[in-house]
Amino acid sequence: MSEWTKRNLLDLQQVSKEEIELVFQTAKSFKEVSAREVKKVPALRGKTVVMLFFEPSTRTRASFELAAKRLSADTINIASSSSSLSKGESVLDTARNIEAMNVDAIVVRHSSSGVPKILADNLNASIINAGDGCRAHPTQALLDMFTIREKLGNINGLKVAIIGDIRHSRVARSNICGLTKFGAQVTVCGPATLIPRGIEHLGAKVNYSLEEVIAESDVLMPLRIQKERQQEKFLPSIREYAIQFGINKEKLRRAKKDVVIMHPGPTNRGVELSAEVADGEYSIILEQVTNGVAIRMAVLYLLLGAKGKPAEEK
Amino acid sequence: MSEWTKRNLLDLQQVSKEEIELVFQTAKSFKEVSAREVKKVPALRGKTVVMLFFEPSTRTRASFELAAKRLSADTINIASSSSSLSKGESVLDTARNIEAMNVDAIVVRHSSSGVPKILADNLNASIINAGDGCRAHPTQALLDMFTIREKLGNINGLKVAIIGDIRHSRVARSNICGLTKFGAQVTVCGPATLIPRGIEHLGAKVNYSLEEVIAESDVLMPLRIQKERQQEKFLPSIREYAIQFGINKEKLRRAKKDVVIMHPGPTNRGVELSAEVADGEYSIILEQVTNGVAIRMAVLYLLLGAKGKPAEEK
Amino acid sequence: MSEWTKRNLLDLQQVSKEEIELVFQTAKSFKEVSAREVKKVPALRGKTVVMLFFEPSTRTRASFELAAKRLSADTINIASSSSSLSKGESVLDTARNIEAMNVDAIVVRHSSSGVPKILADNLNASIINAGDGCRAHPTQALLDMFTIREKLGNINGLKVAIIGDIRHSRVARSNICGLTKFGAQVTVCGPATLIPRGIEHLGAKVNYSLEEVIAESDVLMPLRIQKERQQEKFLPSIREYAIQFGINKEKLRRAKKDVVIMHPGPTNRGVELSAEVADGEYSIILEQVTNGVAIRMAVLYLLLGAKGKPAEEK
Repeated sequence: MSEWTKRNLLDLQQVSKEEIELVFQTAKSFKEVSAREVKKVPALRGKTVVMLFFEPSTRTRASFELAAKRLSADTINIASSSSSLSKGESVLDTARNIEAMNVDAIVVRHSSSGVPKILADNLNASIINAGDGCRAHPTQALLDMFTIREKLGNINGLKVAIIGDIRHSRVARSNICGLTKFGAQVTVCGPATLIPRGIEHLGAKVNYSLEEVIAESDVLMPLRIQKERQQEKFLPSIREYAIQFGINKEKLRRAKKDVVIMHPGPTNRGVELSAEVADGEYSIILEQVTNGVAIRMAVLYLLLGAKGKPAEEK
Repeated sequence: MSEWTKRNLLDLQQVSKEEIELVFQTAKSFKEVSAREVKKVPALRGKTVVMLFFEPSTRTRASFELAAKRLSADTINIASSSSSLSKGESVLDTARNIEAMNVDAIVVRHSSSGVPKILADNLNASIINAGDGCRAHPTQALLDMFTIREKLGNINGLKVAIIGDIRHSRVARSNICGLTKFGAQVTVCGPATLIPRGIEHLGAKVNYSLEEVIAESDVLMPLRIQKERQQEKFLPSIREYAIQFGINKEKLRRAKKDVVIMHPGPTNRGVELSAEVADGEYSIILEQVTNGVAIRMAVLYLLLGAKGKPAEEK
Repeated sequence: MSEWTKRNLLDLQQVSKEEIELVFQTAKSFKEVSAREVKKVPALRGKTVVMLFFEPSTRTRASFELAAKRLSADTINIASSSSSLSKGESVLDTARNIEAMNVDAIVVRHSSSGVPKILADNLNASIINAGDGCRAHPTQALLDMFTIREKLGNINGLKVAIIGDIRHSRVARSNICGLTKFGAQVTVCGPATLIPRGIEHLGAKVNYSLEEVIAESDVLMPLRIQKERQQEKFLPSIREYAIQFGINKEKLRRAKKDVVIMHPGPTNRGVELSAEVADGEYSIILEQVTNGVAIRMAVLYLLLGAKGKPAEEK
C-alpha cells in the first residue's frame, strides 16, 4: 500500500493512481463511521480546519465542515462576504494571516483558477482545493470515482460521458484527469460553444450527439448549466439547451440497462436533467453526496497526517 | 409516563398532551444543565444537527444551535443567503442533499407554510419546524407554555391573551393549539384587520377591547408588529397601533396583580409594549429565552432518540 | 502574582499593569498550546462564548473563535447582517436575550464607541470589547505589547511610533494607553487632519515628520488607512498619503538596525506600507496574528474564571 506524502490537494494531476487508491480505502472506512450511531472519531482532535470560501456554496462547504467535525477537528468558516477582503486585502495575505493562527488546513474555493496553488506555494498549512475557477475540483472527482467504483465495481474500461458546459467546468476537468488515470474512456458532449478546443489533449473524446453518447455510456454525468457563468453568448437559450441536451426518461430508453446518472449538484431540474431522472432508478446523485463526506474525511485525515487507524472510536 | 415516538416536530396539532408533558419534564432537567458550571452533556455526541434557515433569525437559530451543542451534537448552519438556493435549487432538493450527508436532524425555518411538512414527508432525518410562514412555531409555543407553568404553577383554567397581528402569527397559532390542549382559555385581541376570520375554530375567543382583555387575563402576550410582513394595508400607522394596542404601565393598572407579560421577541419597544413594561416586574420575557434552550434541548433529545438519562454529565 | 478579578475587558484604562502581566504570563502558556500537535485544552469545556459582531471582521472574529474553541468552549457567531437587528431591536436588547441563553462571555464589536460599556453595565455575562468605534480595541493592544516584549525583551524605555489615521483608530488609543503604562514613549505621526487634538493628554507625543520618527523609533506601527471611514475630507488622496506617510524600504534606511514593523491588519499594501516591508525582515506582523490567539485565550480564560492550570491537556 502506498504511503501518503502530499501536503496539499490542488488537483488530480499531482496525485498518483496509488495515492487515489489510498484515499478510496481510507474513505471506505470513514463511510462506515458516518453510518454509525456515533458519527465521530477523535483522529483530528485539536487540529484546526478553515473553510475559506470566496464563492457561495452550500453542499461543498457543509460537506467539508462535517467531515472535519466528524474527525473532531475545530472548524472556522470564512466567507468572502463577511471577510476583510472588502477592505482590499489580497487572498494570499488573508490566507497567510489565517495560517498564522496555527491553522492546519485551509479548504479554499475561489473563482480564479490557480488561487489554491498560490496559497500552497506560500504557506505551510495544507491547502485543499474546493474548486478554483474552471480549473479543478479534485474532491468532487474523487467522490465521483469512488461512487462509480462502489456502484459498478470497477472504473477500468467504463465509458463515462460528461455532458453540458465543459468549457466552464472544473468538475469536468478533474473527472477527465482522474477517470482516465483509472482506465475509463471519457467522452464530453454538449453545444460546440461549450466544448473547449483541445479538450482531447486532456484525454477526453468529443461527441456532439447526445443520442450516441447515451447509447454507449455506462455513466452519464450531466453538468449544471451555471446560469451565473453564462455571459449570454454560449447558449441561444436555456430552454433550447434543455431540449437538445437535457436528459429525460424518453432519451434514456436508448441507454444501457445498468447505466448510472450522476450530477455534481446542485441540479437545475428541467434543464440538464428532468426531475424524473434526477430522482429515478438510475440516479446515484445522493450516493455521491454521502460519499463526499467520506472522501473529504479521508483527504483531511491523510493530509493532516493523523496517526492511528482512521475509524477507531474514542 | 408517555414514551416519545414522533420522528418530527412540525406543529402542536400532532403532539398529544402526554407527549408535551414529556417534553416539559425533559426540559426541566436540561434547564438544570444550562445552569451548571459545565453546561454540556454527551447525550447527542456524534449526531449531526443542521440549522437550515431561509429567513433571518438571531435568537431562534442561536437557541437551537446552543441546545444542540450543549448536547454535544455537531452543528452546521445553512442560511439562504449563502446557500445554493441562489442557484435555483428547490428547498426539498437542498434538504435531500443535506440529509444525504448522514444528518440526524434538520431545523428548518421558511417563509412558506408547509415547507417542514414537505421535508418530513420526503426525508428520514428528523425535521424540526423553527417557524413556517404564518402556520406554526411549535418550540416557541412549548417554551411559552413551559414558562407559564413554571411561573404560575398550572396552565389549566388560566386566561391567556394574545395581542396584535394574529393574522400573520405562527406563534399565535401554535400557542392557541398548545394552551387550549392544557385547558387555558385563549383570547386574541387586535385590530379587526389583523384578526383572521374563523380563528374561533382553533379554540380562541376574540375580544377587540384591549382594556377588557387586560383586566381579565392572567397572561398577556403582545406580538411583535412585523413591519416586514405588513403590506401597509392592515394598519393605519404603527403609531396609531401603539396608542390603541400597545401595552404600557398606565394600561396595566387595570391588570390582575399577578399578571405576567410574555413576548416571543424581538420586541419593538414603544410599539406593542413600552420599554418600561418589557423590563418591568411583570415581564418574564427573558425567562422565556432561557427556557427556549431547555425546550429545544428536550426536543432534540427526544426526537433523536438518545439513550440514557438526559442530564447525566460525562 | 496578581489575581484576576475583572469580569469584563472594555479597555486598558481599567486594567492595571499587574493584571496585564498576568494576561501575558497566561498567554505565554497558551501560545505553547497552539504550537502542539493537539491544540486544545479542556479549560472552558461547557462554557459558551458568543461572537457578536456588528462590523465585518475576518481575523479578529476568527482569532476569538479559535481561542474559545481551543479552550473547548462552545461558540456561536452572530453577525449583524443575519441578526434580528434588521427587525429594529436595540443592541442591548439583543445582548440581553443572548445572555438569557446562559451565555458566559459576549465578544462584541460595534461601530459606536461605548457599546461594550453599555452591555457590561447591564449584563452579568463577561463582555469583551473586540473594537468599539474609534475608542478602544484592548486585545489588539495586548497582543501588540506581548509581541513587542517577546521580540525586544522589554517595553520600558522603547520608542514606539504609531503612524497614520490616529483620529479614527481604536488601535492607536488602546496602544497608547497600554504602552505608556509599561514605560514606552509613544509618538503619533500622520497628516495633521488625522491627528486628533489633545492626543497628548493620553500620553503620546506628536511628530509630523515621518523621517524623524523613523530615525528614532524602536517600533513602527503604521495603521491601515480605513478607506471606509474616510469621508473623503481628511486626505487629499490615498496616493499622496502613500508617498508622504507610506513606509517603504527606501525610507527604512534611516531606521534603527533592529527596528520592528507592526501592523494591526489588514494591510493596504502600497498604501501605509510597501509589500516589501510588510513581508520583509523587520516585519513581525504575522507574529502579532499568532500571538493574538494566545492573548485571547488568556483573556477568555481569566475572565471566565477557569479553574486549574491553563495549559494542562485533558
